[in-house]
Amino acid sequence: MKPTHLVIIGGVAAGPAAAAEARRTNPDLRISLFESGPDISYSACEMPHLISGHISSLQKLVRFTPHAFAAKQGVDVFTLHTVVGIDVEKRKLTVLNRRTNATSVVGYDRLVIATGATARVPENLSISSPDLYVLRTLQDVKRIDQALTKDVKHAVVMGSGYVGLDAVWALHLRGVRTTILAPSGFLTGGLSPEMGSFIKTYLRSKGIGVREERGVGIEKAGDGKIIAVLTDQGEKIGCDFALIATGTKPVVELALAAGLKIGPSGGIRVDKHLKTSVNGVWACGDCIERPEMVFAESVRMPLSLHAFRSGRIAGRNAARGGRGRAASMSPSVHAAAIGLGDLEIGHTGWTKEAATALGKNVISAQATHRTASSLSEHYPIHVELVAEQDSGRIIGGQIVGGPGSVGRINVITSLIRLKGTIDNLYELDFVYAPTLAPAHDPLFVTARLLQKKRTV
Amino acid sequence: MKPTHLVIIGGVAAGPAAAAEARRTNPDLRISLFESGPDISYSACEMPHLISGHISSLQKLVRFTPHAFAAKQGVDVFTLHTVVGIDVEKRKLTVLNRRTNATSVVGYDRLVIATGATARVPENLSISSPDLYVLRTLQDVKRIDQALTKDVKHAVVMGSGYVGLDAVWALHLRGVRTTILAPSGFLTGGLSPEMGSFIKTYLRSKGIGVREERGVGIEKAGDGKIIAVLTDQGEKIGCDFALIATGTKPVVELALAAGLKIGPSGGIRVDKHLKTSVNGVWACGDCIERPEMVFAESVRMPLSLHAFRSGRIAGRNAARGGRGRAASMSPSVHAAAIGLGDLEIGHTGWTKEAATALGKNVISAQATHRTASSLSEHYPIHVELVAEQDSGRIIGGQIVGGPGSVGRINVITSLIRLKGTIDNLYELDFVYAPTLAPAHDPLFVTARLLQKKRTV
Repeated sequence: MKPTHLVIIGGVAAGPAAAAEARRTNPDLRISLFESGPDISYSACEMPHLISGHISSLQKLVRFTPHAFAAKQGVDVFTLHTVVGIDVEKRKLTVLNRRTNATSVVGYDRLVIATGATARVPENLSISSPDLYVLRTLQDVKRIDQALTKDVKHAVVMGSGYVGLDAVWALHLRGVRTTILAPSGFLTGGLSPEMGSFIKTYLRSKGIGVREERGVGIEKAGDGKIIAVLTDQGEKIGCDFALIATGTKPVVELALAAGLKIGPSGGIRVDKHLKTSVNGVWACGDCIERPEMVFAESVRMPLSLHAFRSGRIAGRNAARGGRGRAASMSPSVHAAAIGLGDLEIGHTGWTKEAATALGKNVISAQATHRTASSLSEHYPIHVELVAEQDSGRIIGGQIVGGPGSVGRINVITSLIRLKGTIDNLYELDFVYAPTLAPAHDPLFVTARLLQKKRTV
Repeated sequence: MKPTHLVIIGGVAAGPAAAAEARRTNPDLRISLFESGPDISYSACEMPHLISGHISSLQKLVRFTPHAFAAKQGVDVFTLHTVVGIDVEKRKLTVLNRRTNATSVVGYDRLVIATGATARVPENLSISSPDLYVLRTLQDVKRIDQALTKDVKHAVVMGSGYVGLDAVWALHLRGVRTTILAPSGFLTGGLSPEMGSFIKTYLRSKGIGVREERGVGIEKAGDGKIIAVLTDQGEKIGCDFALIATGTKPVVELALAAGLKIGPSGGIRVDKHLKTSVNGVWACGDCIERPEMVFAESVRMPLSLHAFRSGRIAGRNAARGGRGRAASMSPSVHAAAIGLGDLEIGHTGWTKEAATALGKNVISAQATHRTASSLSEHYPIHVELVAEQDSGRIIGGQIVGGPGSVGRINVITSLIRLKGTIDNLYELDFVYAPTLAPAHDPLFVTARLLQKKRTV
C-alpha cells in the first residue's frame, strides 16, 4: 500500500535529505517537514568560517530557505513548529506553533525522525550569562558574531573536540586572544595522546593557549558579565567570552516519550533500513545510533555525510510502497577531518586506546615523514596506524600534518571497510610524484613499522 | 645451503634496493654490484626538476655515491662495468671494464638482474644530432642542462607519457618556448580521451603548444644543427632542441642471450618470488614483467615504488639460505601521478578503452566537482571511474585537477586491490572539512553516477 502522508521532524541536514529522496521515490506523496528553529538546510560545519570572517554572510551557509526548499521539492515546510508528542498508535502528532503558541494535531502514515543533536552542556556549566555561548545552530553563530563586533579581549573555549578546535581557531583568526581547555586530549578520544601533542604544539606556536584542565564553572561580575572560567585544577582564567564545546547529545526526548527504543550510546535504535522499533517510524542523522564496521559497537555519528546518507535511506524507505527492495545502510566507519590553518588533522576507525579499553588485542605504530619529496616543497606529516594483533586487520588511523596530508585518511578507511590488513596496505601501489607525494608514502612507511611490530 | 657470492647487475634503483635487503638478510654474504654507467642510486623521477631549475645541482639527485653505498652496505660497487655475458651453467659472468676496456670473468652463486629500461627511440628517429635528446640517465640530464645554458629558442618534445609531460613542463619553467607532440593522448593510454583533453587545455593555457601529431624525423642544417621536427601530418615544426620521449623498453638483451624466458610484454619472466626461469637467477625493477591485479595481464611497471619493492624481494630471496619462507610479490596495480604546476594528474588500473579492447564488459563515469567547499579556497577536479558491468568491481580511475586532487588515486587503488565495488566506494565514509574536502567527495559523486549507469 502506497503511503499518502509522510511527516519529517527536523530540517537541518538529514531531514531535508530524507524529504528530497522521498520526493524522488514517490512523486505523489504529501510530505510535511517540521523544524523547531527558524532555519532549515544549512551547513553547520561551515559556521566557524563565519566567526573567523572568512565567510561574509550567514545567508551563504543556507543551502535552501524554507520557501525555496518547499518550492523545489514540493514539500510543506513548517519552521518554528515543534513536534511535542507522537501518538504512534493513532499515527498523530501534536505540533506547537512557536509563532502563535497554538498546538494542533497532524496525522501521518509514515514518519521520519531527524531531530539531530544538541550541545551537551555539563550541569555545572548550565549557567545563564550573556557571554557564555554554545555553537550548534545558525542562531548561535549569529549571537557569537554579534558579540565579536564588540571588543572581546580573551575568549576561553571549553572542550577540544571538532567544534572546540574549529571555534578556537576561528576566534584566533578573528584576532581574539584565545585559550582552549583540553582536559582529555583532542577530538574526543579520536587521537592518541602522542598524535594530540602535535596539535597542542601547533596551537601554542600560533599563540593560542592550551590548558589540560576542565572548565567547571564561571565567575560573573556584579553586572552579570563573565570575568573568568574556573577549572578543575582550581585555576581562574580571566576572560570576557566563553564557549562551551563539550560535545553533543542526541535529541531523543520525543522518541523516548513515544516509546521508541533507545540504544546503549543514547541514540534512537534503528535497523539497517533505518526503521525504528515502532511501525511506520524511521529515523536518521545525528539522533540515531548504528553499528560501526569493525567490532559492531553501537555508535552515534554526528557527521555531515552520515546525516545525508542516512537521510536519503530513511526518506526512500519511508516513502516507498511495499514493492521492491528497501534501501539498506551498511555499518559505518567513524572518519572525520579538520583543517586549522595549514595543519590538517584526521582520524578514522579505532584508536589503540579505545580498542584496548574494549578488551581487544591491538597494536599501533607511528611515523613522521613528509608530504612530498625532500627536494620539493613539503611539510611534516605524522601518521598512526592501528591493527588487530592476531588478524593483522587495519582498524584505525590518525593523521596530523601540513597541506596535502589528510586525504590519506580515506585510504585507511577503504582498508577498514574492506577488511584490509597491514600487508595489504604495505603492498598498496602508492603513487609517487616528487611535488605531490614522496617516493615512499607516509602510509607505506607506517605500515612497514606496524608489520615489524606485529612479527616481533 | 647459504650462498656466498651474490652479484647484482644494475645500480639505479632496484639494484641498490636488492643489495641493501640482501645485506640485511645475510650479513656474511659477499655482494658485488655492476653498473654500466658512472652513477648509481639516483632519483630519475626528479631529473626534470633539474631541467626546470628547481633543483640546483645534479648531486642532489644522488642518494648514494658508489663509495658511500659500498661503505654503508658492505657491497663491492663497480661502476662503468658492463656485464656482457652470463654463463648460467657455470655461474660465471663476463664483465667489461669500460674504463680500461678489459674483460674479466666473475663467478657468482646467486644473481640478481636489475638492468632496468632504456629510452625507446623509434627507428626513424635514430638519428645522430647534438640537439636531439632523450631523458633517461643522469648523463642525459647533464647534457640537456648544458644545452639550456645556451640560448634555446624552441624545444619540441616528442611523446606525451610521464617523461614527455615532465620534460615539456620543465622546459617551460626554464623559460623555453615549447611544443609537445601528443599523437595518442596523454600518459600512454592511461587516460581516457576526455580526461586527456583537460591536460591539453591546461598546457595551452600556459602557452605550451600541443599538437596531436607524431614526430617522424628531424631536419638538420648544413652544420648538423637541428632546425625542425617533421611530423606524420607532413608538418615541419621549426626548433633548435628536440627531445624524444616515446616510451621505454626493458633492457633484456643480456637475459635473452643467457636463455632466460621473456614474457609477452617484453619483460623478463619471473615467478612471485621474482625468480627467473633459470636457477640461481632473480630479476627485479623495470626489466621484469608481472601480472596486474585485475585481469592478471602481464605488464611492465617502470615505477619507482615497484623498483624498490621488487628489488627488496629479489634481494631477500637471492640472499637467503634454504630455510624459512621466501618473500613474495603480490600482483600489482599500475598507478602513477604527475604534477604540472598547479595541475595534478593521476591514474590507476584500467581505462575503459583498454579493458574494452581486451574484450571486457566495462562501464565508466566521469564527474567534475571541486576539491573543497564552495565557500573555501577550492579547485576543479575531474574524476573518471571504471568498473566491470557484471560484478560492479572497480577496476580503474583517473584524476585531473587542482591542488589537493590526486591523493584520491590511492583510494581507488585500495578498492581495486581489495576487490571493492562501486557500492563499496559509494558507501565509503569520506572525510569532510570545508577547507580540505567538500561535503560530497568527488569520488562519492562519481561513484553515484557509475552506480546509476550500471543499473540502467
